[in-house]
Amino acid sequence: MKSVGRHLILELWDCRELNSPDVVERALRESVEAAGAHLLDIKIHTFHPQGVTGVAVVSESHILIHTWPELGYAAVDVFTCGSNTDPSAVLPVVRRYFSPRRIQVMELRRGIVEEE
Amino acid sequence: MKSVGRHLILELWDCRELNSPDVVERALRESVEAAGAHLLDIKIHTFHPQGVTGVAVVSESHILIHTWPELGYAAVDVFTCGSNTDPSAVLPVVRRYFSPRRIQVMELRRGIVEEE
Repeated sequence: MKSVGRHLILELWDCRELNSPDVVERALRESVEAAGAHLLDIKIHTFHPQGVTGVAVVSESHILIHTWPELGYAAVDVFTCGSNTDPSAVLPVVRRYFSPRRIQVMELRRGIVEEE
Repeated sequence: MKSVGRHLILELWDCRELNSPDVVERALRESVEAAGAHLLDIKIHTFHPQGVTGVAVVSESHILIHTWPELGYAAVDVFTCGSNTDPSAVLPVVRRYFSPRRIQVMELRRGIVEEE
């Protein structure tokens, strides 16, 4: 089966540094590079009293980080298409920036085309 | 079990209007409204020779549309947190804009917290 892209869904628990827009931006930029993707646009939003959303639109789809510092939780999505990208390369990056004690990983293949 | 948010993963097949940035933007704006979310930022990227990515960052997380006109396929993600939003309300909106013949829907609950 061929698919359009790989979508990694990461659940990060017991994290640190979740309330820093600067850390989220650096983690996001490094994730884009690690995955072999090409950055088109990056936006960081901070929430009050806490929480950060970082969105990287890449030529190959997107990488997103949402944080809930009050829960020690971050939701990370890495959706990349094409054979020159590797979404799983983002894992060591987010580990390094957020020091999660636990990560749940799920991978979805998006746009599966049944071959004749 | 409590969770931080609901993440709807939609696979739209045999669609129309996938190469129009204007249609993607309108679908996205209307999706935000239908879901009861609050728009923080919206960005539309067009690809050559074809394809559109639309990203809406909302206070409650994100709504995304990626299109592959050559396959008649669109990948839609709707991740909303809070009890005042309903990601499934996006379904009739994307149906109306892209006329898919087939939709696959999956819902992930993100950030599940086991209650004591």
